[in-house]
Amino acid sequence: MKKTITVLPGDGIGLEVVNATTAVLDKVAEMYGHEFEYKYADIGGSAIDKHENPLPPETVDTCKSSDGVLLGAVGGPKWDNHPSGMRPEQGLLGIRKALQLFANLRPVTGHESLTDSSSLKKEVVDNVDLMILRELTGGIYFGTPQERREVDGEEAALDTMIYKKSEIARIVRQGFEMAKLRRGKLTSVDKANVLESSRLWRETVEEIKGDYPEVEVEHMLVDNAAMQIIREPKQFDVMVTGNMFGDILSDAASMLTGSLGMLPSASIGEQAPGLYEPVHGSAPDIEGQNKANPLAMISSAAMMLKYSFKMTEEADALDRAVSDVLSAGHRTGDIVKEGENALSTDEMTDKVIEVL
Amino acid sequence: MKKTITVLPGDGIGLEVVNATTAVLDKVAEMYGHEFEYKYADIGGSAIDKHENPLPPETVDTCKSSDGVLLGAVGGPKWDNHPSGMRPEQGLLGIRKALQLFANLRPVTGHESLTDSSSLKKEVVDNVDLMILRELTGGIYFGTPQERREVDGEEAALDTMIYKKSEIARIVRQGFEMAKLRRGKLTSVDKANVLESSRLWRETVEEIKGDYPEVEVEHMLVDNAAMQIIREPKQFDVMVTGNMFGDILSDAASMLTGSLGMLPSASIGEQAPGLYEPVHGSAPDIEGQNKANPLAMISSAAMMLKYSFKMTEEADALDRAVSDVLSAGHRTGDIVKEGENALSTDEMTDKVIEVL
Ligand SMILES: CC(C)[C@H](C(=O)O)[C@@H](O)C(=O)O
Ligand SMILES: CC(C)[C@H](C(=O)O)[C@@H](O)C(=O)O
Repeated sequence: MKKTITVLPGDGIGLEVVNATTAVLDKVAEMYGHEFEYKYADIGGSAIDKHENPLPPETVDTCKSSDGVLLGAVGGPKWDNHPSGMRPEQGLLGIRKALQLFANLRPVTGHESLTDSSSLKKEVVDNVDLMILRELTGGIYFGTPQERREVDGEEAALDTMIYKKSEIARIVRQGFEMAKLRRGKLTSVDKANVLESSRLWRETVEEIKGDYPEVEVEHMLVDNAAMQIIREPKQFDVMVTGNMFGDILSDAASMLTGSLGMLPSASIGEQAPGLYEPVHGSAPDIEGQNKANPLAMISSAAMMLKYSFKMTEEADALDRAVSDVLSAGHRTGDIVKEGENALSTDEMTDKVIEVL
Repeated sequence: MKKTITVLPGDGIGLEVVNATTAVLDKVAEMYGHEFEYKYADIGGSAIDKHENPLPPETVDTCKSSDGVLLGAVGGPKWDNHPSGMRPEQGLLGIRKALQLFANLRPVTGHESLTDSSSLKKEVVDNVDLMILRELTGGIYFGTPQERREVDGEEAALDTMIYKKSEIARIVRQGFEMAKLRRGKLTSVDKANVLESSRLWRETVEEIKGDYPEVEVEHMLVDNAAMQIIREPKQFDVMVTGNMFGDILSDAASMLTGSLGMLPSASIGEQAPGLYEPVHGSAPDIEGQNKANPLAMISSAAMMLKYSFKMTEEADALDRAVSDVLSAGHRTGDIVKEGENALSTDEMTDKVIEVL
């Protein structure tokens, strides 16, 4: 098969990890007789520098005309107080909206050899395997009004958390579908004892659940969920929640397995190409030093093979290669134990290609 | 000194833990020559049952005419789908607003003998000592509009996250004051890369920090904060944040020390009496069985002695008594180790009185 992939290196270590990943994808293409064509475009801080726009229209066009999008990372202190007021994150929020990527999938699994470096006890996190499904194009991230306003004679600022029923329904359905293919349990997270938008969320889950009798569904308040994810993460299979709660919970969950540098994510919509990016940030402190751990980006590419290209076998092979490389004890600097030898980005990439 | 205390037992184990606490307070009064007069009032589910109102006006009046308020717990499955649509939590939200309790203090410290039961590694949580300061009468909990609405021909629901500058300033100042009395570090948590209300929050912190040169201040995004609190909780001294973020982060933090059943909280305003309640819920499953752990409520009363009555010595004595009882190995069912003997609520209360 021939597939066109838009590559958005972004900022910081983004370029290094996408380069590592295209090298690995080339190997996959060679092995399975595919052809991957890469188109590069700018996003985030580097796009502000070049185009004075964190999301130039060409970038959106390039993404739309491709089969899948790989994104490295965006952001960095350089743009924290940019004179134009433009922020790299606007590029990320903008591309999610432009491609209508309403579903953000963040699988949290740990490689057993790494759970040692978790701050949680080994027995709590060993074999954790949960999927956080976060709504990505609605809620308080995009609700209007979002503005400054004078209230009682002084300055005030406000944001609007709003959900339409159809927006809730499509992500919740995705949650049920996903739970069906996994262990059959869906936890819907909201704050229905306080928020009206959460009450509509909960009602919608209740209406849909009849269509999925094989899935066990529970509602959990977000404060309790933040507790439970630390207390006993293995109780969860799929967690589905809104944009803001998903942002917070998925970052908390990424701490569980001691593998933050290894966690992938997928953002998908109904039609447009999916966008695949590592959970970690742009790590400007190690930019350009050939030190970055490319495994999260490589695993994100495996998600692209699976979800966007339906290349299940290829995706599995790639996941296995990552796992085997770790089992063999290969480590980049972020996950190496004291006294052990750390591989560079390039060396780690070569190991994955070798094992493939 | 003579002090009037309003006691709001609320629901579930609320009555048992407030009874335990007034017994302990009587002992404190006897020892230090004070007089505590208790006035009882209804709130939450039990108030719905009796008055068809989770916060009867008499309750507000009683609270306002007293020097401090002790609250057991509110809520329970019995009222989850009450025909009237009334919810016990409305009582809690209502009393916070009526008394203008804008500052919620949740200290997180662990008794060393209990950190074993945390899901986090001992070295990560031993000697954790942080204070979460949550804004309690503003933000998305109280912003309007909060409503159902038709959008694009379908049902939608929305909430409004709004802060006036003065609301932010008063809680942030409290954070600085508190940090000054502790280890001199303040972490302000927001989501300024996405939310306008967070940007105003951050600006306000920046404006105020000049008045507190002795305090080191940092800004942290809420998603990162949820990670860091699990990864390395000892990096924090005082964390100050908005209502919703504080709800989530303080529940996550309550998991750290393995002492959820022991964590107190204080909600205070500028003038009205403060309200003191345990962090744990109403635990309807063990209601009326003389099994509840009263220590969180007792520690909350110690906070009342300290913050509302300025009885520092008495508060310290009470805190020490709780700590000594734990050091002596006394445990209620929630914290007992397998094979050990669990004390009843009454027995635990007697131990505290004895040690005092
Ligand atoms: C960078 C930021 C806008 C973004 C978000 O909040 O969605 C990030 O935290 C994420 O989770 O992808
Ligand atoms: C019961 C609920 C409304 C309340 C809140 O969200 O404030 C509780 O979770 C708390 O933290 O005190």
